[in-house]
Amino acid sequence: MQPVYLDNNAATRMAPEVLAAMLPYFTEHFGNASSQHGFGTPAAEAVRAAREQVRALVGAEHAHEIIFTSGGTESDNAAILSALDARAERNEVIVSAVEHHAVLALVQFLAKQRGVAVRTIPVDGKGRLDMDAYRAALSPKTAIASIMWANNETGTIFPVAELAALAREAGALFHTDAVQAVGRVALDVQATAIDMLSLSAHKLHGPKGIGALYVRKGVRFAPLIRGGKQERGRRAGTENVPGIVGLGKAAELSLARPSSQAGRVRTLRDRLEAGVLTRIGGSFVAGDAANRLPNTACIVFDAALGEAILGELNKAGIAASSGSACAAGSVEPSHVLRAMKVPYTAALGAIRFSLSDENTEADIARVLEVLPTAVAKAREVSGFAPALPELAG
Amino acid sequence: MQPVYLDNNAATRMAPEVLAAMLPYFTEHFGNASSQHGFGTPAAEAVRAAREQVRALVGAEHAHEIIFTSGGTESDNAAILSALDARAERNEVIVSAVEHHAVLALVQFLAKQRGVAVRTIPVDGKGRLDMDAYRAALSPKTAIASIMWANNETGTIFPVAELAALAREAGALFHTDAVQAVGRVALDVQATAIDMLSLSAHKLHGPKGIGALYVRKGVRFAPLIRGGKQERGRRAGTENVPGIVGLGKAAELSLARPSSQAGRVRTLRDRLEAGVLTRIGGSFVAGDAANRLPNTACIVFDAALGEAILGELNKAGIAASSGSACAAGSVEPSHVLRAMKVPYTAALGAIRFSLSDENTEADIARVLEVLPTAVAKAREVSGFAPALPELAG
Repeated sequence: MQPVYLDNNAATRMAPEVLAAMLPYFTEHFGNASSQHGFGTPAAEAVRAAREQVRALVGAEHAHEIIFTSGGTESDNAAILSALDARAERNEVIVSAVEHHAVLALVQFLAKQRGVAVRTIPVDGKGRLDMDAYRAALSPKTAIASIMWANNETGTIFPVAELAALAREAGALFHTDAVQAVGRVALDVQATAIDMLSLSAHKLHGPKGIGALYVRKGVRFAPLIRGGKQERGRRAGTENVPGIVGLGKAAELSLARPSSQAGRVRTLRDRLEAGVLTRIGGSFVAGDAANRLPNTACIVFDAALGEAILGELNKAGIAASSGSACAAGSVEPSHVLRAMKVPYTAALGAIRFSLSDENTEADIARVLEVLPTAVAKAREVSGFAPALPELAG
Repeated sequence: MQPVYLDNNAATRMAPEVLAAMLPYFTEHFGNASSQHGFGTPAAEAVRAAREQVRALVGAEHAHEIIFTSGGTESDNAAILSALDARAERNEVIVSAVEHHAVLALVQFLAKQRGVAVRTIPVDGKGRLDMDAYRAALSPKTAIASIMWANNETGTIFPVAELAALAREAGALFHTDAVQAVGRVALDVQATAIDMLSLSAHKLHGPKGIGALYVRKGVRFAPLIRGGKQERGRRAGTENVPGIVGLGKAAELSLARPSSQAGRVRTLRDRLEAGVLTRIGGSFVAGDAANRLPNTACIVFDAALGEAILGELNKAGIAASSGSACAAGSVEPSHVLRAMKVPYTAALGAIRFSLSDENTEADIARVLEVLPTAVAKAREVSGFAPALPELAG
């Protein structure tokens, strides 16, 4: 049986074209891109070309607005810390309750250790941001608002253009973690007031360990990592040339992909969701059905432990993920679903299926074949009391 | 004419065995190492094996003392910031005057923006640390001393075991930037009081964009990059699995390399130096001849601009580097050579030749053939007054 991979929000398979583009920069053009000799020239030229490819992907005006980083988490950390460093007179940060840990863990640390005031904006049951609370939180004290473009668990898309415009009115910077949005929805930062945007290559069929931070021209930037003058003094450290080339190629491939493919992914995702809801009682889709990434299905199965469902799926060669973090024996439901007020025991049974262009109708058929039994078994071993009326009786 | 690469302190050619080890983790085992399904298992297992390989290279006691980072600069920054964060009652940092920018740029920023007191220890004319000044700087206020294992420009080796022991006596942490030492001299952190050690894969015939920080068990660590729970909560962000595998393989290859190869590199380096000094007047070797990396030759040519010499060498297909940083039209001599009190115009003429196992006798012969004319031409165009009596007289 062919394995089925439905965990593309965690990592995508790297495209063969990306590997082919990277290969010459490992053992052949291995020079340091900052070198002053012929061995460094091809590396420097490749970095230049990749910066232009990433610029085009996000719709930035200038290639020098792209800073290469080691990934989405570094980009998120750098954006928020930079805003606080560069604007010492403002000491408040606005985030949504459903941000990635790369934002939340940082701001929690800053609140605890550095006296930064963190305004956390709630979401409703569909994961939509409370716009009134956001407007009310913006003030002359706001250094930066950091709201993700699309949620990694539910796929819910946030109105970042509107949020950025409101932040600008308040004199605050606006950053968006677009790690899950890049390559899945069209980006055009020039058309918005977004000041900074984070992205990661490995969600885009590119390599792990490389990402970028878009920083709009004119925005003061304080580096997270200091040392040499690489990246115009904004990110020190020898350039990861093969990684940068891989990100550039992945960006190019993503832009060149016909939009019909997004439609195809959406169709598969919708078929998966409809099939699951028909076949399995006590289940529902979490997130904003009207405004979601086309590839993400977060399905909540009441009265079952997500890890138990995943275990059954894994036995059948199906890869997905659960929203809960399983650490040191304790299982905590996803902070995203809790923020959406999904009942505790239902939230523990959430499974995220995330698709890519590589998925097929056969993949979906296979999940629909396996999942009903998997959930039934998981409900048996989990022994939870149902939280939803449907199962409760 | 075959090009000659003598810039291995900037970047080494990645070993084919390293590439072969990495390849399966790009397009085949592409899963997220933190995933709970079968696609993540090979990635997680590969990370575990690589951590053990790096542990062995540095002689650490436990594999979990190795934290994977994006490279030497990140490791250096993380070590110093962690010491200051984790020990708020101590607000002083000790560094040498000849540290890499990854240390110096950071502590200069900390001094200016965060009120950290930086004690900079001078070196003598051979680049050797002033041990009395180091002892005098250590105090109950010292959070951390960060002294490199070996200097990147001259190759001079510092007595890190002794320095670490003195720091420990004073209750301070000791960090060493071992980026240039790893793979070139034997490391055994267990036999020392070193608390933290930085290394980078691309100086070791491994890939760019990956490095490690050794943190001794029991040393409190505050992460530089926050988010998910990767690296036991000490470095957030999806693991760069291919990079980590590449670093592990490079570490393994380095450990397995017969020590006779270091002897061979040293012989070639010594032949290069002797040949240059015989053929070219007004030149001398900078650094501690008795205690240097075997692969590094920093040769100072009086009354010539290093960039001009590099340009001539580059035309002949020879890659080396100069110690001076050429930025925005102004040329500043290397801070390392200035700290060694090398006269200004002599320091501007420094060329670093850095070898690896891949260099041959033919490479050295070629340099000795080309260099005299290159220096003569550079002296002509540079038009500097000689600073050394030999040329001046």
